[in-house]
Amino acid sequence: MSLKINGQRLRSHLECLAKIGYREGAGITRLAYSREDVQAHEYVAVLMREAGLQVSYDPAWNLIGRWEPTLAQEDRHAWAASSGESVWPKKTSRPAIVMGSHLDTVPQGGPFDGALGVLGAVEVAQTIIENGWSLKRPLEVIAFANEEGSLAGGTFGSQAMAGSLAEEEMTLLQDEKSALARAYLNLGLDPKLVPSAKRDREFAAAYLELHIEQGDVLEGLGIPIGIVQGIVGIRRYEITVHGRAGHAGATPMAGRKDALVRAAQLVLDINEKARSFGPGTVATVGRIQASPGAFNVIPGLVNLYAEVRSLDLKTLEDFEAHLYRRVEGLGALAVVLRKDPVAMDRAVMGHVEAACEALRVRHQLIPSGAGHDAMNMAAVAPAGMIFVPSRAGLSHVPEEWTDWEHVTLGTQVLLESCLAVASHE
Amino acid sequence: MSLKINGQRLRSHLECLAKIGYREGAGITRLAYSREDVQAHEYVAVLMREAGLQVSYDPAWNLIGRWEPTLAQEDRHAWAASSGESVWPKKTSRPAIVMGSHLDTVPQGGPFDGALGVLGAVEVAQTIIENGWSLKRPLEVIAFANEEGSLAGGTFGSQAMAGSLAEEEMTLLQDEKSALARAYLNLGLDPKLVPSAKRDREFAAAYLELHIEQGDVLEGLGIPIGIVQGIVGIRRYEITVHGRAGHAGATPMAGRKDALVRAAQLVLDINEKARSFGPGTVATVGRIQASPGAFNVIPGLVNLYAEVRSLDLKTLEDFEAHLYRRVEGLGALAVVLRKDPVAMDRAVMGHVEAACEALRVRHQLIPSGAGHDAMNMAAVAPAGMIFVPSRAGLSHVPEEWTDWEHVTLGTQVLLESCLAVASHE
Repeated sequence: MSLKINGQRLRSHLECLAKIGYREGAGITRLAYSREDVQAHEYVAVLMREAGLQVSYDPAWNLIGRWEPTLAQEDRHAWAASSGESVWPKKTSRPAIVMGSHLDTVPQGGPFDGALGVLGAVEVAQTIIENGWSLKRPLEVIAFANEEGSLAGGTFGSQAMAGSLAEEEMTLLQDEKSALARAYLNLGLDPKLVPSAKRDREFAAAYLELHIEQGDVLEGLGIPIGIVQGIVGIRRYEITVHGRAGHAGATPMAGRKDALVRAAQLVLDINEKARSFGPGTVATVGRIQASPGAFNVIPGLVNLYAEVRSLDLKTLEDFEAHLYRRVEGLGALAVVLRKDPVAMDRAVMGHVEAACEALRVRHQLIPSGAGHDAMNMAAVAPAGMIFVPSRAGLSHVPEEWTDWEHVTLGTQVLLESCLAVASHE
Repeated sequence: MSLKINGQRLRSHLECLAKIGYREGAGITRLAYSREDVQAHEYVAVLMREAGLQVSYDPAWNLIGRWEPTLAQEDRHAWAASSGESVWPKKTSRPAIVMGSHLDTVPQGGPFDGALGVLGAVEVAQTIIENGWSLKRPLEVIAFANEEGSLAGGTFGSQAMAGSLAEEEMTLLQDEKSALARAYLNLGLDPKLVPSAKRDREFAAAYLELHIEQGDVLEGLGIPIGIVQGIVGIRRYEITVHGRAGHAGATPMAGRKDALVRAAQLVLDINEKARSFGPGTVATVGRIQASPGAFNVIPGLVNLYAEVRSLDLKTLEDFEAHLYRRVEGLGALAVVLRKDPVAMDRAVMGHVEAACEALRVRHQLIPSGAGHDAMNMAAVAPAGMIFVPSRAGLSHVPEEWTDWEHVTLGTQVLLESCLAVASHE
């Protein structure tokens, strides 16, 4: 006998959640800690209780729904009816299977980014519980606080849980006048206690996150499931290219030092260099400005924003060395971000693969080009991610969309993966 | 015996003029029709009278100083002492030798652009008159109104004189509420009469304009005098390059349609194409904007400003055809300006060349990459231009500079050219 998730119920939950913060023509706006974000968390807490999970918030305002398979059915019902005042389960009997994602959105975002991973996990837990199955391990469903980076850097809640909050964020939390600290005070939480949300390495046997791809690789291949190999590292640069401004009519071509011509060569070089590393590495020049910026003046200065992302740290380092050599004598290069790649756990990836094969679902190894809570959780648990196709690769926009069949299929794969991890030992 | 212009006097006049509209650290600002521009014209009118010229303004507010060599010395003195209420000399006995340029500046401009051509011409006239020389032809020195294009297109006064005012400008002049019409009303002139400043073809035997180069060709060659072959034609384009925006992390290189990469190829192509035509043709992309313009989004749209200039009309047409082919399928191209090249008169160029050789001054044929009043005057008179070096090719900035020895030498060449034209028939 096999378990099937309830696709209709999941769809209905996602549609209800998508109404919170929705405005006609402007998508969904649920900035972290906002009134809409709090409403979304309260709504999901209700769904968690209905599913049979014990609900609590940790000190970082991560919403946690927990199920202990050894407890009697009646006790679980008692919890479901309770108001969620239970103590946050810092220490657990046995390492849990943890699933999660986030409920906050960017301004004018879409209905699936984050929401799918949380409500899919609730659906998986509910399917297991309502069918009377028992597991060797507890389940935890987490809606991480502030993934999109309102008032602080992104993936804030999972950073707190992994104990990897940055210096700047620690400082904001200590300062009661900061917007971040005030957001926690408004929620009835002590901002100074946020770092105590840190979990020990033994709390989880695995962390699994279901997410939309946010790219168009799966759609292009016609494959419904991506098994994430890792989350790419990012390096961002502000590049200044110098030239010599001059009258666009009175300066012959031969004597020119046109900063935009030099910058155009650099744009093409960055593109070609990224291609030379093969799949898994991308580089983008997203912004360019030529000064003074008139028809009749040769650009004397060009500013560029460039970034490179790769699963491979060595590639990032080689790219950066190349960029330094390339920019030398042309202008200046400033590093504005350095984030190392995070690999997903091979054993967890294997369980997801086994789940896909058991379900006879086509799947594809894929890097994640965007950051996710999984990249922090990988520091405290063997982590894995499951991607479903994004229509036209769109995300962070009102048009963000994933077909309902892929929503259902991805959640079924999450369930099977969860069972595969649970049955493994 | 030969005539020598007075370099000290000319320098002193240029230095005095440079004080009108000057602000410490911000160069000289004498926008056309402004208080400062009117002051500059009044100052030059005084210099013209001192030189022995009869002074008047035409209906377009072009300031004209005229000398009739057949008149007795006493009459000229009587004019110099007059208040300038003389009638604008629309019809003349014999075609005159006309010299001129303009007194207005761009915002925060320099001391030589335009000013040199007017005060150099006054100095030439004064040298001829005070030495008691007679010529076969009258002399006219003109300070053209509004060359830099305040409240209307550039070279406004010379367009009026050539009868080539554009439709839009004619409309502005008819509309008493337009800023341009009000500027003329404030000067005590009827804006509707501006077009009557048009001169007949017989009014001038030659038009000669001394000007700074505004490029660095002469400086680079170490040659003090440029004999202008013609004023380049200009075509300006707004180009839109389309691509597909996408997540800079989640979109593999292989599937990208990066509008900035396409635009960079176009920038290089425009540069190479211009070089392929050889000297006399230049092309510039002066402005570029990639949208949406963030680190983490592949540009979906790029806007460019591009222009090409050439002495050769066929080159401009070939370049435009190339550009249309190149942009086809990539985006769209809109023509925002089409101005045909204007050749200088070969006979007048020959007189300037003869003058340089008589003075044993090194000289060089050179295109003018910028527009000048000479390009309009060429429609009503055989026209020629003399360039002197611009330090580092700079103009339209406070740092605009030409060495005094070049100022003196250029004015001496203007005098000799003027005498060569006068003695020719």
